[in-house]
Amino acid sequence: MNPAATSVRRQLHTPPVPASPFPYNPGSMLSVMDLSVEGVSQLLARTTALENEDPLVRDRILAKRRIALLFYESSTRTRTSFELAAKSLGADTTLVSSLSSSIEKGESLKDTGLTLRALGAEAIILRHPSSGAAWLLEAETRLPVINAGDGMHEHPTQALLDLRTILAHLRPGTLTVSDDTLAGVTVTIVGDILHSRVARSNMLLLPRLGARVLLCGPKELLPELAAQAGPGIEIERDFEAAIRQSQAIMMLRIQAERLAGLQLDLGEYKASYQLTGQRLAALAPTAIVMHPGPIIRGLEITAGVADGVQSTILEQVTNGVAIRMAVVERALLAARQGGRA
Amino acid sequence: MNPAATSVRRQLHTPPVPASPFPYNPGSMLSVMDLSVEGVSQLLARTTALENEDPLVRDRILAKRRIALLFYESSTRTRTSFELAAKSLGADTTLVSSLSSSIEKGESLKDTGLTLRALGAEAIILRHPSSGAAWLLEAETRLPVINAGDGMHEHPTQALLDLRTILAHLRPGTLTVSDDTLAGVTVTIVGDILHSRVARSNMLLLPRLGARVLLCGPKELLPELAAQAGPGIEIERDFEAAIRQSQAIMMLRIQAERLAGLQLDLGEYKASYQLTGQRLAALAPTAIVMHPGPIIRGLEITAGVADGVQSTILEQVTNGVAIRMAVVERALLAARQGGRA
Amino acid sequence: MNPAATSVRRQLHTPPVPASPFPYNPGSMLSVMDLSVEGVSQLLARTTALENEDPLVRDRILAKRRIALLFYESSTRTRTSFELAAKSLGADTTLVSSLSSSIEKGESLKDTGLTLRALGAEAIILRHPSSGAAWLLEAETRLPVINAGDGMHEHPTQALLDLRTILAHLRPGTLTVSDDTLAGVTVTIVGDILHSRVARSNMLLLPRLGARVLLCGPKELLPELAAQAGPGIEIERDFEAAIRQSQAIMMLRIQAERLAGLQLDLGEYKASYQLTGQRLAALAPTAIVMHPGPIIRGLEITAGVADGVQSTILEQVTNGVAIRMAVVERALLAARQGGRA
Repeated sequence: MNPAATSVRRQLHTPPVPASPFPYNPGSMLSVMDLSVEGVSQLLARTTALENEDPLVRDRILAKRRIALLFYESSTRTRTSFELAAKSLGADTTLVSSLSSSIEKGESLKDTGLTLRALGAEAIILRHPSSGAAWLLEAETRLPVINAGDGMHEHPTQALLDLRTILAHLRPGTLTVSDDTLAGVTVTIVGDILHSRVARSNMLLLPRLGARVLLCGPKELLPELAAQAGPGIEIERDFEAAIRQSQAIMMLRIQAERLAGLQLDLGEYKASYQLTGQRLAALAPTAIVMHPGPIIRGLEITAGVADGVQSTILEQVTNGVAIRMAVVERALLAARQGGRA
Repeated sequence: MNPAATSVRRQLHTPPVPASPFPYNPGSMLSVMDLSVEGVSQLLARTTALENEDPLVRDRILAKRRIALLFYESSTRTRTSFELAAKSLGADTTLVSSLSSSIEKGESLKDTGLTLRALGAEAIILRHPSSGAAWLLEAETRLPVINAGDGMHEHPTQALLDLRTILAHLRPGTLTVSDDTLAGVTVTIVGDILHSRVARSNMLLLPRLGARVLLCGPKELLPELAAQAGPGIEIERDFEAAIRQSQAIMMLRIQAERLAGLQLDLGEYKASYQLTGQRLAALAPTAIVMHPGPIIRGLEITAGVADGVQSTILEQVTNGVAIRMAVVERALLAARQGGRA
Repeated sequence: MNPAATSVRRQLHTPPVPASPFPYNPGSMLSVMDLSVEGVSQLLARTTALENEDPLVRDRILAKRRIALLFYESSTRTRTSFELAAKSLGADTTLVSSLSSSIEKGESLKDTGLTLRALGAEAIILRHPSSGAAWLLEAETRLPVINAGDGMHEHPTQALLDLRTILAHLRPGTLTVSDDTLAGVTVTIVGDILHSRVARSNMLLLPRLGARVLLCGPKELLPELAAQAGPGIEIERDFEAAIRQSQAIMMLRIQAERLAGLQLDLGEYKASYQLTGQRLAALAPTAIVMHPGPIIRGLEITAGVADGVQSTILEQVTNGVAIRMAVVERALLAARQGGRA
C-alpha cells in the first residue's frame, strides 16, 4: 500500500467524534458506525473463536442470561439467526412479535421496551419498520440494543456478515482488518438502494476498510444523492459496466409491488438489471455473488446464478449466525464491563 | 393492633370451608382464594428465596419438567413473564396460542387440555377470554392449572405481584403476612372495575390482609353491587376524595372502544379520572401509583405520572416474574407432595 | 403361524428395491416405506428405551444439536409433540411457521430449506399442505427430513404411534415386530380416507406386519381404487359389518365443510358412520377406539365413546412424543453414521 494514500483514507474515514450520545450502552449495536475499524477487527476475531468453540463450552458463556427478540416485522432468517446464536451461547430467549403481543393493544415501543427490561431482559434485539426505532428503544431502556433492521435505515449485523463473506473469498486467511484491508476491491450493490437498510449499512462499513462501493439501479430506486452518503461511494447506472469492475456483486431483493408503484416495468427492469449466467460469465467470471435474501428467483437473479458456484448466498446465512454470536456476546459482556469495543 | 378488632377481622376474613371441590389439584392456582393467608405468606417467602438463588442452581429446580402455556388471548407481559419464570427454573415450556394451533380447528378447551396432558405437560398456564375457563380445564385434566386471566373474572398472580409491590413500599422488610399486615392501608382501584379481572383478584386478596379497598369509577364501569364483593370494599366515586385517602392507587387500563360503547365521553372521563401530576402532588404526594399494564399514556394516566418517582409500574413487572417462579414451582411440587399450601 | 402363509406374506410385503433415490439421507423419514419391518422393530425398541431413560441423561443425547420445525400448516399436537420430543433429547429447536416468517414473502420451499440448513439446522421437521413437499425439501437440502404430514399423502410418525398403541393393547409385551406380528388383527379405518394422510400411512404400514385393513366410508370419501393401495387392504362400506370384525377401529376427523362440498348430508353421515356407544357395545365391545385428533365430539364420534374405556385417543398422543424422540434421534444419528435403519 502507498502510505500516503492510506493516510488520506485514514483521514477521510475516521468517524467524527460523535456529537450524539448514542449508543448509551457500550453493548449496543445500533449502526455499523458504533464500531471502530479496530472494533470490527476484534468482533471478526471473536466470531471465529466462537465458531470453533466446543458447543458444550459455548453453551455456558451466557447460561441463563435473558435476551428478548422484539420483532415488529416478520423475518425468518434474521429472527432465527439471532435466536440460534443466542441459544448457542446458552441464553434464554423470548420472542415478542407483533403477531402475538400487546403490541396490538397499542402499547408504545418505549413501554414495551421498559416492560421487557423489567421482565429481566438483559439485551433486546429489535426489528422495526420505522427508521431510528432502535435508537429510541436504547435511549429509553439504556439496555444493550441490537438493531436487527430499522425501516429503511440500518441493519448492521447484515453488513458485518457480508464483510465476513467478502473477506473469506477475497482476502482468505485474513484475521484482522484495517482501513486498507479491502483496498483495490470494488463491491457493486444493485437494485432498490433507496429502501434498503442492507445497502446503507454496507455503504457505511465497506469504504472504511478501503473498498470502493458502486451503487447501481434506476433513478427511481437510486437517487443521485446516494453517492454523497460517504467517501468511497460512486454511482454507476450501467449494470454491465458496474459488474465488469467488481470483485463482489451484491444483489438486493426487488419487490414487484414497489416497481409497480414507481411505474417501472418489470420486464424492463429485468432486461437492465437481472443478474444472469450470461452476464456473469462474460463480465465477472470470478466475482462473488451476494444476496441478503430472501431471493426471488427469476426476478433480480436467475435460479442458475443463485445456485451457481459464484454464489455466496448460503455462506452469508451461515456467517450470520456466527457474527451474531459475537454481537450478542458483546452486548452482554461489554455492558457488564462498561467498556466500548 | 386492637386484639378485639383483629379477632373480628379474622372472623370476617376466614374463608369458608369450600363447598366446591376446586381446586382438585393442590398445585393449581385458579383464584387468590385458593391460598389461605398462611399460604400467601409462604409463597411470598419462597418468592424472595428464589429471587436470591444462584441462577444456575435455580435452573435445576424443575429441570426437564414440562409446562404448557395455553393462551387464547395474546399478552406480552403475562405470557413472557410466566415463560421466563418457568425457564428460570429449568423447565421446558411450550406455547400453544390461538394464533398457531388447532384451537382454530374448533377443538374444545377440554380436548386441548387433555391433549397437552397426554403430551406430557405437568402443568398448564391458561389465559382465556371466558370467565371460569381455568376451573373447567382443571376439572377435566386434574393437572395443576394456573389461571393467567380468565375473562372478566380473576388473575390471581397479578394480585400476588401487586401485593408484593405494596408490601415493599408500605411495609418494607416484611417477610410474612397475616390478617392485619395491611391494617390502616387504603388502596384505591380506579377505572373499568366491571370488566377487570385484575380488580377482582385484588379485591379478593387485599382485604384479607387488613387493607381497605376503595373502588372508583363511573356507574357504567362500576356498579353499586361491586361493594358487596366482600368485606373491606367500599365505593368512592369522587376520584380526588378517593386518592386523598390512599397509600396506593391502582389505575386500570381504559379501552377507548369500551367507553364509546357505553356512550361515555373520553374527554369527560379524563377530566374526572385521569391521574395527573397535579392531582397526585396535591392529594397523594406519597402514595404509590400502580398499573397492571399495558398503559395508555395520556388516557387513564399521564406520561409524567407513569414515569414519575411514585410509579411502581415496572417494579410490578419485575415482581411478576419473581412471584410466578414461586407459583410455577408450587404447581409442580405441591402436586407431587399432594399437599395444599 | 403357517410357515407357507408367512412366506407368501413375506414375498408380498417385501418392499421392492427402490428405483427412486429417496430418501437421500438415511436419517430421513418421508414415508413409512422408508423403514423395513426390521427398521420398524428397532425404532419401537429404541422408543421404549428412550421413554425409560432418566430425563437428565436423555437431555444430553442431542445436546446443542439444532432442529428446525417448518410448519406451513398450523397444528397443536404434531408441532408440540415433535418440539417436546426434540427438547427431551436436549436439542435446540426453532419454529418457522407460515404465520411468522418470510414464507409470506413468497420464498420457495427450496430456498427456505437451504436457508435453514445454512442457519445450522441439522434436521427439518416439515408439515406442508402439498403432497410430496417433504421429498422436494429432502432432495434440495439433503438433510434428514421428517415428514410431519404432506398434503393428503403421508404422515409416517402418526402410523408408527398408532402401531405402538395397537401393539400395547393387542400384543402386550411385544418388543419386536415381524411380518406376522399382527396376523389375525383387523383394523378398520373410517371416514374421509381420500383426503387422509393418516389413513395412507397406516395402510402402508399395518399390512406389512400382517394386519388386515378394512376401509369404510361413502364412495365420495373412499373411492373403490383405495383397495388397490397395497396387499391386505379391503373395502367394507357397511360400518357395522366392518367394526364387528375389528380389533381396532380408527376414526378419522370429518370436516363438515368437506361434506357440504360433496353434497353429503351431515345427518345421514352420522346415521351411517358415527361411532356411538350403542354400536360399540353391540358390535365391538373389546375393540380399541383410535383417533388421530383433533376430534369433533358428536360428529364422527360421540363424547361418550371418545372418553370411554375403549378409547386410546390420549394414549396415542403420549405414544406420539415417545415415537418422535426415537425418530428425531434416528434423524441425527443415522445421518452421522451414514447407516440406514
